[in-house]
Amino acid sequence: MVDSPSSSCLFCQIVRGDVAALKVFEDETSIAFLDHRPVFPGHCLLIPKAHFETLADLPTNLIGPFFQNAQLLARAVENAMEAHGTFVAMNNRVSQSVPHFHVHVVPRRRKDGLRGFFWPRYPYQSAEEATAVQTSISAAVSLLQR
Amino acid sequence: MVDSPSSSCLFCQIVRGDVAALKVFEDETSIAFLDHRPVFPGHCLLIPKAHFETLADLPTNLIGPFFQNAQLLARAVENAMEAHGTFVAMNNRVSQSVPHFHVHVVPRRRKDGLRGFFWPRYPYQSAEEATAVQTSISAAVSLLQR
Repeated sequence: MVDSPSSSCLFCQIVRGDVAALKVFEDETSIAFLDHRPVFPGHCLLIPKAHFETLADLPTNLIGPFFQNAQLLARAVENAMEAHGTFVAMNNRVSQSVPHFHVHVVPRRRKDGLRGFFWPRYPYQSAEEATAVQTSISAAVSLLQR
Repeated sequence: MVDSPSSSCLFCQIVRGDVAALKVFEDETSIAFLDHRPVFPGHCLLIPKAHFETLADLPTNLIGPFFQNAQLLARAVENAMEAHGTFVAMNNRVSQSVPHFHVHVVPRRRKDGLRGFFWPRYPYQSAEEATAVQTSISAAVSLLQR
């Protein structure tokens, strides 16, 4: 279940205590600490202690406990930073600075100036294009469920 | 467990079939469909069928099944769109266009031009500032765990 953690993986080093981090949470399976270059103060990273690269690699039995911790951390960050909300996100491979799965929890305030990942956005050019994408993803879901 | 879904909630209307959506996945607890204004083609939204506003509101017993579906969808979107990775994210209240909890699953490619939420970033001004934030979030976690 545990991929062999590379001695060069920064987050495995944090789990082992070889690299210091400002921890805010820890249990048997996961650990959370402050991102050292936050988007906003209070920006935390939640990671599984075992080395998995992406969300797709997380074993099924860890998903429940891990995301319960993500929920706890989102609540705690919002409370502690007196934020209006949170942004909770995962970069899988692309834009993933450390190849050890991590969930960003970022406190948000209204009018905080964060434009976000979500712009610009473009409607599908035609109903046919959208339907082709729908069919393709539905088929991929079915293949994975076999 | 189920908050009373408002007749005006767009996503509740999609769940009920009153508003059309290009579905790519459905099970007992959740449904996924194409975002009609995607960041990139294949951008999907996964929602719980019951009406909950944010991640913090999702009942504990739904977290495992729901995020197992998020994992399935991330794999399927990556496969179907022949992407290099995915961006999986939740806006809780701030930047949340529909107040019905939803997870964005966006296919990513290297050099796709998405600058992302994660820039600019700023280091803490001092060790004291960082430690104060750490202490505050750790305390909020402990309070929530009581």
